[in-house]
Amino acid sequence: MTFNSVLDDVKTYEAGKPIELVVREYGVRNEDIIKLASNENPYGTSPKVVKRLEEVSSSAFVYPDDSMYELKEALSTKFNVNEDNVIIGAGSDQVIEFCVHAKCNTNSNILMAKTTFAMYEIYGKQTGANILKTPSDEHNLDEFREIYKQKGADLIFLCLPNNPLGECLDAADVYKFLDEVDENTLVVLDGAYQEFASYKDGAKAIIPSEVIAKYSNVIYLGTFSKAYALGGMRVGYGIASPSIINNLYKLRPPFNITTLTLASAIEALKDEEFVEECIVKNFEQMKRYEQFAIQKGFKYIPSYTNFITMYLGDYISKDIAQELLQKGVIVRDMTGYGFNAIRITIGRDEQNTKVFEILSKILEDQK
Amino acid sequence: MTFNSVLDDVKTYEAGKPIELVVREYGVRNEDIIKLASNENPYGTSPKVVKRLEEVSSSAFVYPDDSMYELKEALSTKFNVNEDNVIIGAGSDQVIEFCVHAKCNTNSNILMAKTTFAMYEIYGKQTGANILKTPSDEHNLDEFREIYKQKGADLIFLCLPNNPLGECLDAADVYKFLDEVDENTLVVLDGAYQEFASYKDGAKAIIPSEVIAKYSNVIYLGTFSKAYALGGMRVGYGIASPSIINNLYKLRPPFNITTLTLASAIEALKDEEFVEECIVKNFEQMKRYEQFAIQKGFKYIPSYTNFITMYLGDYISKDIAQELLQKGVIVRDMTGYGFNAIRITIGRDEQNTKVFEILSKILEDQK
Repeated sequence: MTFNSVLDDVKTYEAGKPIELVVREYGVRNEDIIKLASNENPYGTSPKVVKRLEEVSSSAFVYPDDSMYELKEALSTKFNVNEDNVIIGAGSDQVIEFCVHAKCNTNSNILMAKTTFAMYEIYGKQTGANILKTPSDEHNLDEFREIYKQKGADLIFLCLPNNPLGECLDAADVYKFLDEVDENTLVVLDGAYQEFASYKDGAKAIIPSEVIAKYSNVIYLGTFSKAYALGGMRVGYGIASPSIINNLYKLRPPFNITTLTLASAIEALKDEEFVEECIVKNFEQMKRYEQFAIQKGFKYIPSYTNFITMYLGDYISKDIAQELLQKGVIVRDMTGYGFNAIRITIGRDEQNTKVFEILSKILEDQK
Repeated sequence: MTFNSVLDDVKTYEAGKPIELVVREYGVRNEDIIKLASNENPYGTSPKVVKRLEEVSSSAFVYPDDSMYELKEALSTKFNVNEDNVIIGAGSDQVIEFCVHAKCNTNSNILMAKTTFAMYEIYGKQTGANILKTPSDEHNLDEFREIYKQKGADLIFLCLPNNPLGECLDAADVYKFLDEVDENTLVVLDGAYQEFASYKDGAKAIIPSEVIAKYSNVIYLGTFSKAYALGGMRVGYGIASPSIINNLYKLRPPFNITTLTLASAIEALKDEEFVEECIVKNFEQMKRYEQFAIQKGFKYIPSYTNFITMYLGDYISKDIAQELLQKGVIVRDMTGYGFNAIRITIGRDEQNTKVFEILSKILEDQK
């Protein structure tokens, strides 16, 4: 059977390895596994949200309120926008999918940084669009300008801060760039890790209400998967002009988030204190990783997120990641992105201590 | 801003009204609402599954096992197929989306019954495909043959049994039809309500393992939303040849079902006894609706599902549905499908008693 020819060129996303797989394949005990590969919140879900989930678990048979009235209201209050500026997705990932499929086809250009969130390209290729990448690994707006001037683009992705590298552009520079973009080009500002970046450095903070007031062609994306500790519940959002939101809505499947997800996201927004505590601890613990890297002579990218990307010098990152895996520590090898590096989610204090111990021993043994 | 021109013609799905809306708009107390509009399992989620959900609620921060190893294994055992014959979606709805987007574009024809599941057409229009419908309301395979011979089709949908009407083709007739379809035409056998149909009449039972052994161009769809009482958790599946599954996988977003969904579906498959009990009660209660219709002189479509579609004769279905809504009874008005009818999910004994009371009074008052 033949399928749409654009699919020939589509690769699938390689997810971080799940705990279940490490238990199965390496016989590590479940409780000994340290999963630092997918940038989940290592402090777990807020106890208030867990309680709420337990309360609503008996509603698993009921379809969710497809209008998402209450969650939209909470998000529009939080961000000081109207409800018709908001669309909710199964992760901000799904809103990315809507943007690409609403805007792109085989005649389109999509512009992004060389090393950024893999799904931009995967969704892009599903539409047969042409993928344009800036030459530098990290985001460089002059390179974006240059390519945009030369070739144009229907869709531009800026990942602020950037996954998987961790760097972040200043908001002022982003706004200046937006001033130069044609109003028929959709610009996605992916703020999946914005809570971390804006805490670390106010100059990185993107304010969605200001962005959409000024730019009718920009969508801001946020997620509950990272700081809000709901990676497993699949919920994120987009904030944009009603015209963009209405068009994305045409691609939204009904009931695209679960009944329990809806309840958990509403509750998570009520517990901002938990989110703040997690972010504070994240950056305290990140200092330990920076110290560790310096001590071992490894370069790292200063990070505005809850992970750190560390170059491994003379060691081979693929081998090191594999050895860590066999000892129950799951990190992300960056070979697939063209780096001899590993990306590690900043874990809890005791997890990190164990990671330093195990990793030091592996490095020692390889000498 | 311009978007893909195919979107101009896309309408969005109108979901059954949620309980929250009826509480908000009509001031009915939450506990007084009878929601019989979305064909959820009225007996609620299996207590074993609720218990499992409570156990795993603290894992809401962890991404699900994206390989879905355990759920796929359970499904392949249940259906006596291999794991590479299985794809899991956020509802079988999402697998429908994969099928349409993998196979169709602006040059494609999609063939379906005149009155069937609305998402076939909505997803179809997202690709710009041409929608072909058989003239009769219910599925008529001779009409499918005729149009297929005249115009051809890249994709054919058979809804077995059919939502929203409730009728069901015999499996033998379906197989005979499949013999005549070109191997480059993808045929979707949507079995969302198959558990009900095959219980009521063995002649309606579609056996996925037999279908895919014989037809490399057919995909069988099942869901956890109906008999398995997990409508709110968004999980369904497709069973087909590995070649189809591999191509659909190229459109599957990572982490497309939630961590809690994965756990609940695995548990639900272990509690088949619960499912059977619900189905037995469903058809006991359906007899009461048939009696009610006969008593009121209303025609109805004999149903192989957990709902019944009832024509309202001289009454106006839109008004009746609205009056029911104001009294807290949510049913589906069929005016949008071109029928002066309502579709009612078969509820629990006490719910149905109340529906008959309230509906009788409304009919009486309108005389």
